[in-house]
Amino acid sequence: MIVDLASLSLLAPMAGSGGMTAETRLFLALAVLLIVGRTFGEVARRLGQPSVVGELFAGILLGPAVMGRLWPEGLELLFPKTGASATTLDGVRQLGLALFLLVAGMEVDLSRVLRQGRALSYVGAFGLLGPFAIGFGVATFAPHVVGYDGRLGPGLFALFFATALSISALPVIAKTLMDLYLYRSDFGMTVIAAAVLDDIVGWLLFAVVLSLIGASTTSPFVVVGLTILSAGLFLTVGRWAIHRILPFVQAHTSWPAGVLVFSIGIALIGAAVADYAGVHAVFGAFLAGVALGDSSHLRERTRATITDFVSSFFVPLFFAGVGLRVDFVANFDLQLCAIVTLLACVAKIAGCGFGALVAGMPRREALATGIAMNARGSMEIILALTALQLGMIGEELFVALVVMALSTSMLAGPLIRRALNRAEPRRFARYLAGRGFLPRMAAKGREGAVRELAAAAARVGGLKEEVVAEAAWSREELGTTAMGEGIAVPHARLDGLRQPVVALGLAPDGIEFDAPDHKPVRICFLILTPKDNPATQLEILADIGSTLKDPELREKLVVVRGYTELLALLRADGRAR
Amino acid sequence: MIVDLASLSLLAPMAGSGGMTAETRLFLALAVLLIVGRTFGEVARRLGQPSVVGELFAGILLGPAVMGRLWPEGLELLFPKTGASATTLDGVRQLGLALFLLVAGMEVDLSRVLRQGRALSYVGAFGLLGPFAIGFGVATFAPHVVGYDGRLGPGLFALFFATALSISALPVIAKTLMDLYLYRSDFGMTVIAAAVLDDIVGWLLFAVVLSLIGASTTSPFVVVGLTILSAGLFLTVGRWAIHRILPFVQAHTSWPAGVLVFSIGIALIGAAVADYAGVHAVFGAFLAGVALGDSSHLRERTRATITDFVSSFFVPLFFAGVGLRVDFVANFDLQLCAIVTLLACVAKIAGCGFGALVAGMPRREALATGIAMNARGSMEIILALTALQLGMIGEELFVALVVMALSTSMLAGPLIRRALNRAEPRRFARYLAGRGFLPRMAAKGREGAVRELAAAAARVGGLKEEVVAEAAWSREELGTTAMGEGIAVPHARLDGLRQPVVALGLAPDGIEFDAPDHKPVRICFLILTPKDNPATQLEILADIGSTLKDPELREKLVVVRGYTELLALLRADGRAR
Repeated sequence: MIVDLASLSLLAPMAGSGGMTAETRLFLALAVLLIVGRTFGEVARRLGQPSVVGELFAGILLGPAVMGRLWPEGLELLFPKTGASATTLDGVRQLGLALFLLVAGMEVDLSRVLRQGRALSYVGAFGLLGPFAIGFGVATFAPHVVGYDGRLGPGLFALFFATALSISALPVIAKTLMDLYLYRSDFGMTVIAAAVLDDIVGWLLFAVVLSLIGASTTSPFVVVGLTILSAGLFLTVGRWAIHRILPFVQAHTSWPAGVLVFSIGIALIGAAVADYAGVHAVFGAFLAGVALGDSSHLRERTRATITDFVSSFFVPLFFAGVGLRVDFVANFDLQLCAIVTLLACVAKIAGCGFGALVAGMPRREALATGIAMNARGSMEIILALTALQLGMIGEELFVALVVMALSTSMLAGPLIRRALNRAEPRRFARYLAGRGFLPRMAAKGREGAVRELAAAAARVGGLKEEVVAEAAWSREELGTTAMGEGIAVPHARLDGLRQPVVALGLAPDGIEFDAPDHKPVRICFLILTPKDNPATQLEILADIGSTLKDPELREKLVVVRGYTELLALLRADGRAR
Repeated sequence: MIVDLASLSLLAPMAGSGGMTAETRLFLALAVLLIVGRTFGEVARRLGQPSVVGELFAGILLGPAVMGRLWPEGLELLFPKTGASATTLDGVRQLGLALFLLVAGMEVDLSRVLRQGRALSYVGAFGLLGPFAIGFGVATFAPHVVGYDGRLGPGLFALFFATALSISALPVIAKTLMDLYLYRSDFGMTVIAAAVLDDIVGWLLFAVVLSLIGASTTSPFVVVGLTILSAGLFLTVGRWAIHRILPFVQAHTSWPAGVLVFSIGIALIGAAVADYAGVHAVFGAFLAGVALGDSSHLRERTRATITDFVSSFFVPLFFAGVGLRVDFVANFDLQLCAIVTLLACVAKIAGCGFGALVAGMPRREALATGIAMNARGSMEIILALTALQLGMIGEELFVALVVMALSTSMLAGPLIRRALNRAEPRRFARYLAGRGFLPRMAAKGREGAVRELAAAAARVGGLKEEVVAEAAWSREELGTTAMGEGIAVPHARLDGLRQPVVALGLAPDGIEFDAPDHKPVRICFLILTPKDNPATQLEILADIGSTLKDPELREKLVVVRGYTELLALLRADGRAR
């Protein structure tokens, strides 16, 4: 360079370059919230819990409850209460909330509610009426037991509390049912349809509460009527218009930007209108999502792009942000939390369960229905946070509602499993260890391959190599375990084994296995299961079969070179965990 | 409901519910920016221009330049200069900018630069040195001609102006080459590699300018050294670390949230560190993108999700936001715009062209190389906006730099085409009109089908039905135009036709067409082209062949019921325009 650099340093120092500016702080705060929130979200998922549990926990750690006590300067540095970065962070969280409600609304399948029959009506109706009546009754006759502090008039508080008990969390319920492979069953469909109904009516009730708060001069009947009318109009006329416009947008704009902007634009306008009308932005964004998601013109990839980005970027920001707002330790009132949680569980399980019994469901399923509908998850937290922000409730009741939301969601999975007597389905990837994976098998023949895998499996399970090899080979001699398409699944049931062990060997050059389709085997499993549990073996075999049905996955699997790469492959295709 | 509604209205009105709150304003402002920005972006694309042109224009319309003059209350209502919504909008724009640079960085293929040979070195080196020397010279000897106003020291201003002329815009260049089907040619590869080089060095230069501004006490040599050293470290050690960690993240976190958060988290941390060091957030986010995008472990779908969302949501917000900041009408100085644009074009085209000639390229290609590299697009706008925000330049020079960026980008496509003597490739969908689409053909036989389509095509082109039918059928009689897989392409070249006409008929039940594979025809085109241009017919035929190669598309096409749906199908698969 030919610049006279010495002359440059004569400049006066300029503002805005370097140091801890508001912008630096914003980027740092976003990075910390995202990464810590996601990490704890992952931990929660590992423990079989919804990721919102971990994200909230991350916020509690980063917020006044923990970091504020241990390192107050850090809290002030990253998340100051005032200033441009605080305002922006708050705005981004509000935006994230609106987009989250858009996504939650998109998951609502309105047409499904209309297709379901009697069972739905009973479960949905009693699932709403039960908690509503119990919540309203308790909040009216013993308001201080459930945290009433005089901020709201007694009638409105009872209405709010009843709504808080009635709402359910469709996203959490759907996720729980999917994890249990119950989503597409009759039972699952009824629960989902009832949850959709309760979600919509619950939010409508909340919108009514909000509009009643804002409209002290107009008659409350008018307010209630207008709220319900505009929601109804949007879900009929608005839904119809969106369904008509969507194909036009898809046809005449570049893809996917046009349809993404259309979807998000509708949600933002819905949010702005609802906010302006005083029923809170979330309600408008939710209705926009319902209308959009119901259109058969909405492409799977549009839905996936919005959902992926919103739930990876905005959702952790929002839920981790909840923990930043409130000191969860100082405002934790054990008695209040216990009462609210107990009341919520009893009211919802009893209401839905009763409805299910009336509809003729067997007892166990009725109980499972109640437990599933009991999950309040993210929806309850959003409702509680909105009420807190509007000064409707105090921080102690807020914390109690969050605790109730988390505990009902965390309990749902395990309790349904117990109620239906259903064990967690077994996936082969869970029993695959690093030492049990042979990316390049040495063996050239069938017996050699079985013995090589037996040695690896024996190492993993702490078993005797000969015992494993003998058991597997004697099964193999009864008839080949090659199942075609280059896959073989030698297996054995062993005495004294406590946990299944799966070993996997790859042979890109192929091994002759006497397969039914005469193809050489390139992917060879060895499955060892406890002798006293025959179902396990069948479940693992079925899982391998269904996972490797995909020819593309088989091709990718054969050339995998390491254990991490193997896990990455199985996980990316949604096959592990 | 059993609520005593009358008692509810006795409540005191509460704050925060209803009316034009900061939140309402934020949602509305975002919705307007997104929708208007996207709409004009689409219009720009229709006119064959990069969408950034339209997005910027939308901002000028919505900002002080137009709306501020016509309806100042509207401007104040939607985009107030102060308050929570203004702060948040600004923060979201900064966030969008960082994410846009992440995406731009991800498109940089660092390894490609290293693989290219001599041509790249010459084009890249002269493409930088030429504009840099010319810019530095003019800004040193005639600073006021190029808008110098004393804000910066003369040395730094010359350095800044030289950098502003040297930079190029990889995303715009890549897009232009793709549109011309030149991206994968040798020519395209050289241009892209040179643009990558110039992008990296250009941003490095800008980072040096920024760090020199901030560091008046340290020796400028130390500052320059540190900036280059840390960028170098990040692109070697940092890149290596990211490449190692990425598979781990993909293997052990849920997909795609884990890897999305990882990518965005790195970009945000890079932005925060760069901002703290005083070299502006964009530089850190850009380097993070380069390092990430270079890892072979990054999956196509992760890249697509980030790119889709960032470019649909954040990019229009950012570029439309540029127009909000500055009054483009009041600060438009024709002479300054003309000088800056001319200087930029001459310097870049001459520099790159000379380099290309030295490297042994033919004259026409050397000229095309210079024109392609001349596009400054979004990168120049970001550089100019950053300089404006830091008070380095005034609004008039800012407007001149934006005009230069836009005009160089808009000229690139048409000028390359002219330099290489290359006509725009013809896509069949362009010549397909609504009236020329018959979703359910009535004809049952070959001749009937040709005549039915001829009637439709005649209506569209304003031709005589018998003439078209005769011409098409006499060609058909020479031998079937069925090409197998259920597709037939009757065609004719007609005298006096000014534009090609394509008609399309569907016959789900199939029409016997004497096809080579004996399959009945279900998709039947009729292609009419001008007699004096034989190449057109071949191009359209080739385009139909390559589009319908995909069996899934054929299946979807057969059941299409309307013209809009047809366009949506062709467009979603990236096949039209």
